[in-house]
Amino acid sequence: MDKLLYTGKVKKMWATADPEVLRVEYTDIATAGNGAKKDHFAHKAELNHTISTLIFKYLGQNGVPNHLIKSISERESLVKKCDMFPLEVVTRNVAAGHFSTRYGLGEGKVFPTPVEELFFKSDELDDPLMNESDAIALGILNHEEHETIWKISRQVNQLLSDLFDRAGMQLVDFKLEFGKTHDGQIVLADEFSPDNCRLWDKKTKDHLDKDVYRRDLGDLTTVYEEVLKRLENVEEA
Amino acid sequence: MDKLLYTGKVKKMWATADPEVLRVEYTDIATAGNGAKKDHFAHKAELNHTISTLIFKYLGQNGVPNHLIKSISERESLVKKCDMFPLEVVTRNVAAGHFSTRYGLGEGKVFPTPVEELFFKSDELDDPLMNESDAIALGILNHEEHETIWKISRQVNQLLSDLFDRAGMQLVDFKLEFGKTHDGQIVLADEFSPDNCRLWDKKTKDHLDKDVYRRDLGDLTTVYEEVLKRLENVEEA
Ligand SMILES: Nc1ncnc2c1ncn2[C@@H]1O[C@H](COP(=O)(O)OP(=O)(O)O)[C@@H](O)[C@H]1O
Ligand SMILES: Nc1ncnc2c1ncn2[C@@H]1O[C@H](COP(=O)(O)OP(=O)(O)O)[C@@H](O)[C@H]1O
Ligand SMILES: [Mg+2]
Ligand SMILES: [Mg+2]
Repeated sequence: MDKLLYTGKVKKMWATADPEVLRVEYTDIATAGNGAKKDHFAHKAELNHTISTLIFKYLGQNGVPNHLIKSISERESLVKKCDMFPLEVVTRNVAAGHFSTRYGLGEGKVFPTPVEELFFKSDELDDPLMNESDAIALGILNHEEHETIWKISRQVNQLLSDLFDRAGMQLVDFKLEFGKTHDGQIVLADEFSPDNCRLWDKKTKDHLDKDVYRRDLGDLTTVYEEVLKRLENVEEA
Repeated sequence: MDKLLYTGKVKKMWATADPEVLRVEYTDIATAGNGAKKDHFAHKAELNHTISTLIFKYLGQNGVPNHLIKSISERESLVKKCDMFPLEVVTRNVAAGHFSTRYGLGEGKVFPTPVEELFFKSDELDDPLMNESDAIALGILNHEEHETIWKISRQVNQLLSDLFDRAGMQLVDFKLEFGKTHDGQIVLADEFSPDNCRLWDKKTKDHLDKDVYRRDLGDLTTVYEEVLKRLENVEEA
């Protein structure tokens, strides 16, 4: 029987017979405010898992090194086991969320070049913002690894801004996580879903992401289904 | 009569007959916690003004472009009027203060290379940490100006780490402010005193800076007098 290695806020990580492979199990949980708000939504696991799998496959086909091996059920995938950087690697194309509150601005300003921010992934410390020199001083990564992470993030931003644009959505911002596989390669890990990005309808600017839950703007499941439907339509086109 | 342009938390800025020149008047006020704590200390104005003048002269003699024109009284100097970047430019040689609390660490770890942090100077927003891409996105400066500011900060760190070392003190961290003179030159402005740096006695590790006031560790005036005395002894040697 597989051993449960880690229960995160929304996913469970299981060991497998192969020490270099993990099984990720998505749950129906949504959290906001670093766990302060927490609820269950029927089918959220399948929705996030399906969206994330579609996106990781698309990124892989376009040359982005990532942890996905294969999807094995509606809510489970096998992934390459990584030694994770304790970082949330955030790219912002448009001012929103924490950026707007931190600097006392409204949401919606499109940046001439994307904003690139690192946060120290730590529930206890409430994920503080950090810069490259902070991360290096704390021994989290070195300069070359920092370059690699941002090189991949920029590639992801270009590919996904285009993909979501074709699906009628604006990719406002997103959070990535990176790790190192057993052979030392830096790869994109974790997930990519409306849980960890902001998507605005291109025309109406409606929120099509976890902000509907954070801000009580509508039903999370309905919105995530809409995102998946739009992505599947683009894929088929 | 000169016009009072700005009353800051500890200094007053006066216009002069020359539109390119300001008169800075130091006050006896000390504040901490973004103004939450506030007190008067006899002679603080003279102490900070004398220390800052000594340091700005030393930096100027060693090629650091700065705003100082000349000292005109015990508590006043004439400076080049600058268009200030709303930034606090912080260099850390040793973990302490906000760095330690932000990342849940103790104080005292010496960094292999200095930590370099920008804060958005805004009393309302409580001076949030920002990185280069944030500052560029907000239109505060461009990449070249960011490079210039850090080039000067590194020069200041080398010169002052050495100066304070010779005075028996470890320069733990410090905050600089930069501005542009009327001809567009980026110069070091504001002040350099125990109000805006951390100095530890090399042997005892005693605090010789505003932390004695922030943390109620001793008498501010006594400590600032000690810093000045040590710097004057080095200058004479
Ligand atoms: N390929 C991987 N190898 C090891 N750990 C991973 C991998 N991908 C993601 N993780 C980690 O597994 C956890 C996923 O579960 P999640 O519920 O998102 O947790 P958290 O509450 O820590 O964000 C995260 O801590 C994430 O960093
Ligand atoms: N050369 C200069 N030209 C214009 N403004 C300056 C110059 N040097 C410092 N300043 C500004 O003058 C003010 C100094 O007063 P201070 O009491 O330190 O104010 P604050 O509470 O804003 O830190 C600061 O806002 C600082 O940015
Ligand atoms: Mg997570
Ligand atoms: Mg000041």
